[in-house]
Amino acid sequence: MSWKKDVLLIHKKEEAVRLLGDLEGSKPIFICVIGNTETAKIPGISAAGRSPELTDYTPAADVEFLFYGECRCIKGVPVTPDGIPTPALITRAAIVLADMPFFVISGGVRVKPYAPFIELGGNPGADIRTGRAVEGVEEVVGRAKAAGRSFSKAADYLVVGESIPGGTTTALGVLLAMGVNAKGMVSSSMPVNPHELKVRTVEEGLRAAGIKPGDLKDDPIAAVSAVGDPMIAAFSGFVAGAASSRPVLMAGGTQMAAALSVVKALEPDVLDNVVIATTRWIASDSSSNIKGLVSQIWNVPVVAANLDFSTSEIDGLRAYERGVVKEGVGAGGSTIAAVLKTEGRVTCEDVRRKVEEEYRRITQKGSKNNRFHLPFWEAKAGGLFAGLSE
Amino acid sequence: MSWKKDVLLIHKKEEAVRLLGDLEGSKPIFICVIGNTETAKIPGISAAGRSPELTDYTPAADVEFLFYGECRCIKGVPVTPDGIPTPALITRAAIVLADMPFFVISGGVRVKPYAPFIELGGNPGADIRTGRAVEGVEEVVGRAKAAGRSFSKAADYLVVGESIPGGTTTALGVLLAMGVNAKGMVSSSMPVNPHELKVRTVEEGLRAAGIKPGDLKDDPIAAVSAVGDPMIAAFSGFVAGAASSRPVLMAGGTQMAAALSVVKALEPDVLDNVVIATTRWIASDSSSNIKGLVSQIWNVPVVAANLDFSTSEIDGLRAYERGVVKEGVGAGGSTIAAVLKTEGRVTCEDVRRKVEEEYRRITQKGSKNNRFHLPFWEAKAGGLFAGLSE
Repeated sequence: MSWKKDVLLIHKKEEAVRLLGDLEGSKPIFICVIGNTETAKIPGISAAGRSPELTDYTPAADVEFLFYGECRCIKGVPVTPDGIPTPALITRAAIVLADMPFFVISGGVRVKPYAPFIELGGNPGADIRTGRAVEGVEEVVGRAKAAGRSFSKAADYLVVGESIPGGTTTALGVLLAMGVNAKGMVSSSMPVNPHELKVRTVEEGLRAAGIKPGDLKDDPIAAVSAVGDPMIAAFSGFVAGAASSRPVLMAGGTQMAAALSVVKALEPDVLDNVVIATTRWIASDSSSNIKGLVSQIWNVPVVAANLDFSTSEIDGLRAYERGVVKEGVGAGGSTIAAVLKTEGRVTCEDVRRKVEEEYRRITQKGSKNNRFHLPFWEAKAGGLFAGLSE
Repeated sequence: MSWKKDVLLIHKKEEAVRLLGDLEGSKPIFICVIGNTETAKIPGISAAGRSPELTDYTPAADVEFLFYGECRCIKGVPVTPDGIPTPALITRAAIVLADMPFFVISGGVRVKPYAPFIELGGNPGADIRTGRAVEGVEEVVGRAKAAGRSFSKAADYLVVGESIPGGTTTALGVLLAMGVNAKGMVSSSMPVNPHELKVRTVEEGLRAAGIKPGDLKDDPIAAVSAVGDPMIAAFSGFVAGAASSRPVLMAGGTQMAAALSVVKALEPDVLDNVVIATTRWIASDSSSNIKGLVSQIWNVPVVAANLDFSTSEIDGLRAYERGVVKEGVGAGGSTIAAVLKTEGRVTCEDVRRKVEEEYRRITQKGSKNNRFHLPFWEAKAGGLFAGLSE
């Protein structure tokens, strides 16, 4: 067990040890599922962008950073309003250190990445307060299942992360619609978790859709359509398609509970093949409760990458220890996969050092050529391939 | 050498034996690169659709058939004007028999598949007679390279096929622009190869672009932009990205020569890792000359799947022996990969039998529910996800 120090066992420890043990030394593929929801633009909901309007660019910028080590649709990298950088830095460090193949799937985005991505035909999501959050969920789920089946034939296991600003609020929507007691339990990219605002937002959406909590327990398509987001649709379909033949690490924070709830309703037989993989910052977060959410749905194991930035010389990284950002872009799961793939030759410490190196590279680049500079963050003018989708 | 009877050695036999020998028993991923060009709508150019207008649907329908065993954007399956079915039947048989993972990449299509596909941000191609055939080639090539690098980390080798009606004419365009003496040498999906029409079409395009044959020998981006197609852009970029670390079977007919010419100009170092894999129908075609084309560019090995439909009870399949269709959707290369992957447990005979079974299934389905019927072929009205892209 070369990964003992690097992986924290949070829930269902024995199953976790057995499942992760099976994966040691075998070959993962990392997938990042992206989406946008207008819900992110409600002031105070999301810190996944310098301003609510700029959250449109965050998913595309995150995956561009994975591909190229720099963003293309924006200058710099996505940051919170306080300038704390995206967890895509962690994910890129993990996939580079472990030489891990990775792919991007879009459930529906406003800004398309300047990078290859798998299109499922979905549209960006509306504000969940309308009660009509996502169009064409069934079709997106079906295509995502097909993609999951293809990838399950190409890898020993899959690690699936996400990037969607506002995603914990839409996750709360799906969880409440499906009857999970989730109030006060979803996490936040902000140090002070705006539970009340999230609940109010979801309740407005449920009212608009004419739904009471729990009404859609057995109808995940309707739940996502009413108060979910396009990432959850694509993510859940992908896991349902992939986990029927290969283990899947669902890599994220409390949003994974919403996806788990949808997967359980779509394809309950695959749940034995599923582990939730997150970060220490989510596992130890006192303002959310991933274990409490998961155990209400299905007792899959929960593990966490033992990432610790407390001794980092870089302010923007030490901020993670104060509860900013916490998780995203599959940061925790990709780190765990890097440890497992290399049988412990890559550690959480190595990932931290690589993140620091990357952080210095992008900030120095800024000071040198006056183009990249953290926490400067700005949408670039659209070129040939750019632009908001309609 | 379990594949002796199933793989014909056409060019550079010793290298072919060595390279294929290395691949035996190892794990491929099949990729189908799709695109559209308005060139296909010039009457007499393409038989990859019941009518020139319907060729818009063929690439999407082909890959839908790979995913689902039936098409979604059309009724039935793509057929020639005489009702001979698409080679996607062969490709699906091969990938199903060998349980091969597969993915779709779009270089730029008019009709988007009702299936997952990798988007590179490209647009469908214009009629090459304009001399301005493809926009944004450099960007598409760059993204395709990135996709190729990702896939090369996920497979032991890649098998890359294509579907683009009109593709041999645009291939001729790229070959002539890059100085390959290709007149009278590209193949055709029709039994009588319209060489004169193709040459006239390309020469009109070269004139419009102000180019003489050979002018763009060292500028593949300009050649594809002027008289090429979006499939060649995506295909060549993908091969350039993937073959730097893994072997690649370029799966197709004489269009592969155009892609090879582009790859050679982009990334000559990767050519040792490349084999062209086609069908017996292309290898033995007296109206084209794949060996003559390839040997002008770079002496990569050429091999052919020993597919033989002469004893088939099904008219539409025996037509392949009369020189209709011949190749497409990576039919030859996927068959060879199925043989190699299973170390000869899947043979060309098995693929033929499976094709007959699939053919009967789709035609019976037609007679039963009056929906599928070969050679009936019709564009369906667009639904939520359908439709021509602008």
